[in-house]
Amino acid sequence: MFSKILQRVVEETGGGIGAVLMGYDGIAIDQYFSSDEEIDLQMVVVEYSNVLKEIRRTAEILSLGDMEEISIRTERFVFVIRMLNVDYFVALVIKRDGNFGKGRYMMTRESSNLIEALS
Amino acid sequence: MFSKILQRVVEETGGGIGAVLMGYDGIAIDQYFSSDEEIDLQMVVVEYSNVLKEIRRTAEILSLGDMEEISIRTERFVFVIRMLNVDYFVALVIKRDGNFGKGRYMMTRESSNLIEALS
Repeated sequence: MFSKILQRVVEETGGGIGAVLMGYDGIAIDQYFSSDEEIDLQMVVVEYSNVLKEIRRTAEILSLGDMEEISIRTERFVFVIRMLNVDYFVALVIKRDGNFGKGRYMMTRESSNLIEALS
Repeated sequence: MFSKILQRVVEETGGGIGAVLMGYDGIAIDQYFSSDEEIDLQMVVVEYSNVLKEIRRTAEILSLGDMEEISIRTERFVFVIRMLNVDYFVALVIKRDGNFGKGRYMMTRESSNLIEALS
């Protein structure tokens, strides 16, 4: 059920490469890949999950409110990461010239479906 | 000279609160604030500068290409952080309902001016 939602996010985002549903402990629940792009999304997201915890902690300490979304743009890719609850987040990777706005929209729209599926 | 550029970024971004030009060592070069919003942007950015280094290092290790931009959305604010060179980055904070797209555009447009002013 998670995979269907992830697939929808990836396929409806122009330039979407893959999406993964993951715990802050770095363990993936499910993922979907549309292409054989040379990227190990799971490894990237495991690495970034520690950073996410750090950003979340900082947001708490400094009273910035709950962290909702992070995007990271590199020379090759754009990552959109959306927090679902205290335990889980979802990450989408898009080609650099892909549709970032649509990706963010899809992640926002499908978040509630993922949260529902998780509970 | 930096302050004028930062002021332009903040004032032309709908909902812009402030901007700071900072080194990865957490030392600010210059900053501009438009409002007395209750946020210590410098403290936030100092905290996040360590995270930025971590994200950059991960991007290098995993061959994602150079890190260019990061945005963080919390319940209260949106932060747009843009790398300028190996030593410096610029951070903009916008109200949550501010114009994120315009902020990203302004940061991209003024980056080259900041890089020029830094050299």
